[in-house]
Amino acid sequence: MNSPVALNAHALAHDHDHDHDAAHTTASPSLERSALPAALQDALKLAFGERFSVAMAVRQHHGRDESSFSVEPPQAVVYANSTADVQRVVALASQHHTPVIAFGVGSSLEGHLLAVQGGISVDLSNMKAVLSINTEDLTVTVQPGITRKALNDALRHTGFFFPIDPGADASIGGMTATRASGTNAVRYGTMRENVLALEVVTASAQTVRTGTRAKKSSAGYDLTRLFVGSEGTLGIITEITLKVHPQPESIMAAVCSFESIAQAVSTTIEIIQMGIPIARVELIDAFSVAMVNRHANLTLKEAPLLLMEFHGSRTAVQEQISAVNAIAREHHGSDFEWAHTPEERSKLWTARHHAYFAALQSHPGKRVISTDTCVPISRLADCLLQSVEEANASGLPYFLVGHVGDGNFHFGYLIDPDSAQERARAEVLNRQLVMRALSMDGTCSGEHGIGLHKMDFLIAEIGEDAVDLMRQIKRALDPLGIMNPGKIFSNSTTPSLL
Amino acid sequence: MNSPVALNAHALAHDHDHDHDAAHTTASPSLERSALPAALQDALKLAFGERFSVAMAVRQHHGRDESSFSVEPPQAVVYANSTADVQRVVALASQHHTPVIAFGVGSSLEGHLLAVQGGISVDLSNMKAVLSINTEDLTVTVQPGITRKALNDALRHTGFFFPIDPGADASIGGMTATRASGTNAVRYGTMRENVLALEVVTASAQTVRTGTRAKKSSAGYDLTRLFVGSEGTLGIITEITLKVHPQPESIMAAVCSFESIAQAVSTTIEIIQMGIPIARVELIDAFSVAMVNRHANLTLKEAPLLLMEFHGSRTAVQEQISAVNAIAREHHGSDFEWAHTPEERSKLWTARHHAYFAALQSHPGKRVISTDTCVPISRLADCLLQSVEEANASGLPYFLVGHVGDGNFHFGYLIDPDSAQERARAEVLNRQLVMRALSMDGTCSGEHGIGLHKMDFLIAEIGEDAVDLMRQIKRALDPLGIMNPGKIFSNSTTPSLL
Repeated sequence: MNSPVALNAHALAHDHDHDHDAAHTTASPSLERSALPAALQDALKLAFGERFSVAMAVRQHHGRDESSFSVEPPQAVVYANSTADVQRVVALASQHHTPVIAFGVGSSLEGHLLAVQGGISVDLSNMKAVLSINTEDLTVTVQPGITRKALNDALRHTGFFFPIDPGADASIGGMTATRASGTNAVRYGTMRENVLALEVVTASAQTVRTGTRAKKSSAGYDLTRLFVGSEGTLGIITEITLKVHPQPESIMAAVCSFESIAQAVSTTIEIIQMGIPIARVELIDAFSVAMVNRHANLTLKEAPLLLMEFHGSRTAVQEQISAVNAIAREHHGSDFEWAHTPEERSKLWTARHHAYFAALQSHPGKRVISTDTCVPISRLADCLLQSVEEANASGLPYFLVGHVGDGNFHFGYLIDPDSAQERARAEVLNRQLVMRALSMDGTCSGEHGIGLHKMDFLIAEIGEDAVDLMRQIKRALDPLGIMNPGKIFSNSTTPSLL
Repeated sequence: MNSPVALNAHALAHDHDHDHDAAHTTASPSLERSALPAALQDALKLAFGERFSVAMAVRQHHGRDESSFSVEPPQAVVYANSTADVQRVVALASQHHTPVIAFGVGSSLEGHLLAVQGGISVDLSNMKAVLSINTEDLTVTVQPGITRKALNDALRHTGFFFPIDPGADASIGGMTATRASGTNAVRYGTMRENVLALEVVTASAQTVRTGTRAKKSSAGYDLTRLFVGSEGTLGIITEITLKVHPQPESIMAAVCSFESIAQAVSTTIEIIQMGIPIARVELIDAFSVAMVNRHANLTLKEAPLLLMEFHGSRTAVQEQISAVNAIAREHHGSDFEWAHTPEERSKLWTARHHAYFAALQSHPGKRVISTDTCVPISRLADCLLQSVEEANASGLPYFLVGHVGDGNFHFGYLIDPDSAQERARAEVLNRQLVMRALSMDGTCSGEHGIGLHKMDFLIAEIGEDAVDLMRQIKRALDPLGIMNPGKIFSNSTTPSLL
């Protein structure tokens, strides 16, 4: 854990002539990747007709995400309409030892969707039905292609909502596969806590259910939690049963500005340590506030801010607010500014969610290298403030936003994707931050996943032996190595493919 | 899922001449099980001296639990003092292809500890240290042998507590291994939600850490959740990092009696559906109340009761109480009786926790066959009330207690362990209840685990294909099949042992 970590080869990759996991790749320069075996292509065409595509534009769309990696297009794309469709693709892919990568809306941040070993992208965006809403049990069951906003639209008139909200309007399938969270996690937990059960198509093209709608269970291994966060490497999620939560009687959102990031962070730490059940507590640095103001036409004070939201009964919310107010005052926070109407609140949170896009818009042509560390709350100030110093010293433009109530924050280093130097500088900052977080018993990834970008960080975090357990599980459930290969850890394919 | 389930052979086992997993058992009548290989015995003796025992009394103590199964003693017992000790036992056991079974306090309910294939019981009760208390991060790290009460004693003066409370004063290691919960789970979650990270000795005698102290993580497969609830079949847990919770500003406990179980259940369902954050809501039937009164010298009204507890600020608690009071009144609940002092509260909950022992004490010589179904809350009344009718019709004495806020309840059928007829009658009732719960999208086990007793129920619940995924994981992580073999599913050993 204490030795420096060599940067993963993928982390510095910015052109097409690198060869991911060369032993298992049939073709490099991936844009010219060889076609699928003719028999497989014919079978897919026969099975899916117009829902099968090898058009370059379609392939390129499915070979990128929001990371700064270059496009790695799959060899073909299939649009699945049903679990049976997914089974059919996986069965054919398995016969031909061909990779399969699930695709939702393409909003992942760590290269999860890139077809680094070729194969078939299975687009699940047509599978977006709400299959059942059981408000009396506080559960819903959906298909993976539905986005979090569409789900909340479907719930709007039920009195319930689904709280997990990564910045993007991600698909629920993608959020499940990356164990996503967002601004509400401090109170409502992450996908880990909010997924009750899954339907999954395994690497052998079987459909299994991993659990029931019971609120708790001790029935065997926790297959649900194993697939949550497995990044498509163990199977394709085709149905998700989620917890939903009653819309609170009262919601109040406030902004509090501080003279320094340190004061905002200290305020957050005290809120959490006192056990105040705040629903959201988000840090935005002054630079991000400026970008967000421009992007969303807001007039927030351009200083470090905490964006907060309080949920509960009217009296509970008032209690929380007065407790938080007292803490913020101690740390020289400003008076709270309130978002009075649901529309004002929605505008505020949309602005927060769009911080990433605001940064990109403010810097045309740049890409973002995003950090994702999460540390125990007592170490938050130390971890974050040292990284602010390092980032300031680097000269790279950056923004800083954070789900600080969970100890999780993101630097977004803005780089010219064609500048190897800028990329390297950002990666050095990222690595320094990760190693600091690990030394504080934190994690390299609070919510974005490992993907291509953090494979070495994962090893530094839990050790080769623990990563080997993951590899063993991967080999057991996907002996041919066809499920989104080359993600989370390297060498995940078995000798059978060599 | 709809076909009737054959009763597992183990479920009806009540003497010693059955042969568990015959192909892999070297000796039956287990009391006369052959000794360990001499080389292994010598090596263990050399390594552990007086902490190694083959005395029959010691072996018998380690071959039973609180289930109604007969004793299946291990061939030897080792008292481990450290993770290194556990590694040493596992390494030796691995060399000799000999089973290893972790032992805490022996309070499991489904035969988890029985050495059905012989082997070594590793007693972890000396490993009971609190390794660190990080109240500023709301975490503690402990060794597996500490019990839940001892942990709360250690936390008493910190302002924090650990809420998970199965009836017995179980070890934290055992609670982790069975994904236990208890009366507080309705508000605080189960071991699934409250374990942050583990140290585990794997089947290959490596020590791995499965996570960090970060509150959330997307760093690879969720190894922590995989080991939580794995019943000792994937490795031995040697350290546990847990969440702790601030002691609430205000705690109020009340008893409300009803004319019928149906009214108590309907009250519970409304409390949950309204999203009231009640800390505990426990059903006790009239028969159990009578036994608890006698056992704990209480004077509770001998009618169906809800035992409730409310946690929060003073005003939040008052809000919860008035909301629950209104719901209970609608269902003809009595006025609340209050436990005014911490001592009264403690007496009440101790009585609830001792319901199981009270039942046994009231019926000398009887054993309990306990059910553990958990259903979505909307189905709770249907599921529970039909089973009350069936139990009443059966003529078997029984008690009924339930973590009804979670949809989880336990019938305890009191049987003469020497009466095959009574056992069979209880198992029929259990099976009817399980099949009903499964048809309602519930689980056969809310908190006790599968062990020996529910292997067929597990298959009925999630299907052979999903159980096969579990078997594949087991084989991958424990290729020799030495970690508590014969539990959760059959045929978990690989051809290498044949």
